[in-house]
Amino acid sequence: MLEPEQIVRLEQDAVVLLDQRLLPGEVVEVRCGTPVEVATAIRTMVVRGAPAIGVAAAYGLALAAVRGDDLGAADAVLRASRPTAVNLAWALDEMASDPSPEHARAIHAAEVERCRQMAAHTADLLSPGTRALTHCNAGGLATGGYGSAVGALLTAFERGLLAHVWVDETRPLLQGARLTAWELETAAIPHAVIADAAAGSLMAAGEIDCVITGADRIAANGDAANKIGTYSLAVLARHHDLPLYVVAPSTTLDLGTPSGGSIPIEDRDPAEVTARFAARNPAFDVTPAALISAIVTERGVHRAPYAESLSGAVAA
Amino acid sequence: MLEPEQIVRLEQDAVVLLDQRLLPGEVVEVRCGTPVEVATAIRTMVVRGAPAIGVAAAYGLALAAVRGDDLGAADAVLRASRPTAVNLAWALDEMASDPSPEHARAIHAAEVERCRQMAAHTADLLSPGTRALTHCNAGGLATGGYGSAVGALLTAFERGLLAHVWVDETRPLLQGARLTAWELETAAIPHAVIADAAAGSLMAAGEIDCVITGADRIAANGDAANKIGTYSLAVLARHHDLPLYVVAPSTTLDLGTPSGGSIPIEDRDPAEVTARFAARNPAFDVTPAALISAIVTERGVHRAPYAESLSGAVAA
Repeated sequence: MLEPEQIVRLEQDAVVLLDQRLLPGEVVEVRCGTPVEVATAIRTMVVRGAPAIGVAAAYGLALAAVRGDDLGAADAVLRASRPTAVNLAWALDEMASDPSPEHARAIHAAEVERCRQMAAHTADLLSPGTRALTHCNAGGLATGGYGSAVGALLTAFERGLLAHVWVDETRPLLQGARLTAWELETAAIPHAVIADAAAGSLMAAGEIDCVITGADRIAANGDAANKIGTYSLAVLARHHDLPLYVVAPSTTLDLGTPSGGSIPIEDRDPAEVTARFAARNPAFDVTPAALISAIVTERGVHRAPYAESLSGAVAA
Repeated sequence: MLEPEQIVRLEQDAVVLLDQRLLPGEVVEVRCGTPVEVATAIRTMVVRGAPAIGVAAAYGLALAAVRGDDLGAADAVLRASRPTAVNLAWALDEMASDPSPEHARAIHAAEVERCRQMAAHTADLLSPGTRALTHCNAGGLATGGYGSAVGALLTAFERGLLAHVWVDETRPLLQGARLTAWELETAAIPHAVIADAAAGSLMAAGEIDCVITGADRIAANGDAANKIGTYSLAVLARHHDLPLYVVAPSTTLDLGTPSGGSIPIEDRDPAEVTARFAARNPAFDVTPAALISAIVTERGVHRAPYAESLSGAVAA
């Protein structure tokens, strides 16, 4: 398993990021010497995953402080780097009062600790022999260490509850086939990658017991934005009477957003899908709370009505 | 639009196939000088699509007859080349009584004519302004000319009924992003390719009016095997109260198979999904008849109960 500082760290003159675009084929670090370079790395998905983006932005602001840059300008460029994940804004808000490297490192450590707590809560929901499906990568790479949905799978596996993981390859950028499969292989967890379109027929064949995903932003009513395709899985899971668990830290809750309709959905370059023909490339979708069996944060397992159960779970 | 003989034809000493693995980047023909080479081309998907496979097999048997090969051996190797599409067995059964080139060419011409009839019947079901979603490639490339689902889109567009086509890219082999998009571009039909996982959220956003696909085998009760992912679309369409139309010639009906559970589903090389990690690669899934709004053959529009409505529609 990767150590948190292998995924994202602050050095004296740079934020250093493991380049997640090249994994698992190449293990290469990208050094960002300025806040603008950190923002570019976030936008181009050198680092991705809502909590990891927040950590990278916190380090970016700390770098600005160390360099004596204009902190307002650094905040603005980092905040605008990607629209959907709320952790980005949360981390920058946190850093406003104390833009020190120590504070950024504390934010990072707290995210990893939240993952371990969420994992324990989620594992409590699973029965022995569970065959779980996950989408995209909600692993250590996405959170700066340990992982949300994948962290839950790690803990469940350690407890002897997990039999198999189906990994949606997650087009267009293949975070499942590249990153989640790599993390599961490292942890020696039995797994198989599938085309995203195969999930439904595996559910119909009785080969999936539950769906476990992360989230990029969760509205006050429990609607959850996550990688495009999560919504389809939620509909399919409901049709097959399978639970969908959304595992995300309290830093992903956005109680200021009333429902999913107000969450900005990033449309990325159509060329990520195909450079040859017209294409459309929404990067996220919103799963309505009604299709989510439980939302698990580090504070515990939250169930409907979410407006009530999430209200006490905002980040400290 | 491609002419039927550009897709698959019999010459004096070879079956000539447009290599669908390389399209649209390269337009290359593969010459198969023996029935074994035709079978290999079918297995490796130089030619794919249930009706086109049947036509290629018919030409393969005619080639065997012209060469003076053992017709039983040629039939066996062609019949075993792929398991799911029933058109393969149908075409070989047809050729048994008369393995002449003229007969094979007549089978080919009849498949293209069926496509035009199906297209007219399907267009009758659509309203002006229709925004249709299609999966995989059920175009001229898949049928030996004009196409089943894509043929229906062509006719609907000519009648002024079709506003837009969403094209599932159709992993792992991207027949949608490569073949269907190419055919739609050639016909100047507005379209956009999407990641397979994006279909659900486009339905939720009200951007899709109906789903139109082909089929590889339809059981007597109306259960339809088609490219992996069709079943997921069927569940999603039902959840969003959208019709799913399956467009397929009567040669795709297999009234000897009582239901979808008896249809053999081809598992292809996991390396088509990922060569780096464990993977699973079912090439087809089965959509239960209950999720299909109508099955359209050249004989007309068939609705539930399919056991009754399909019984009179078998190929002459």
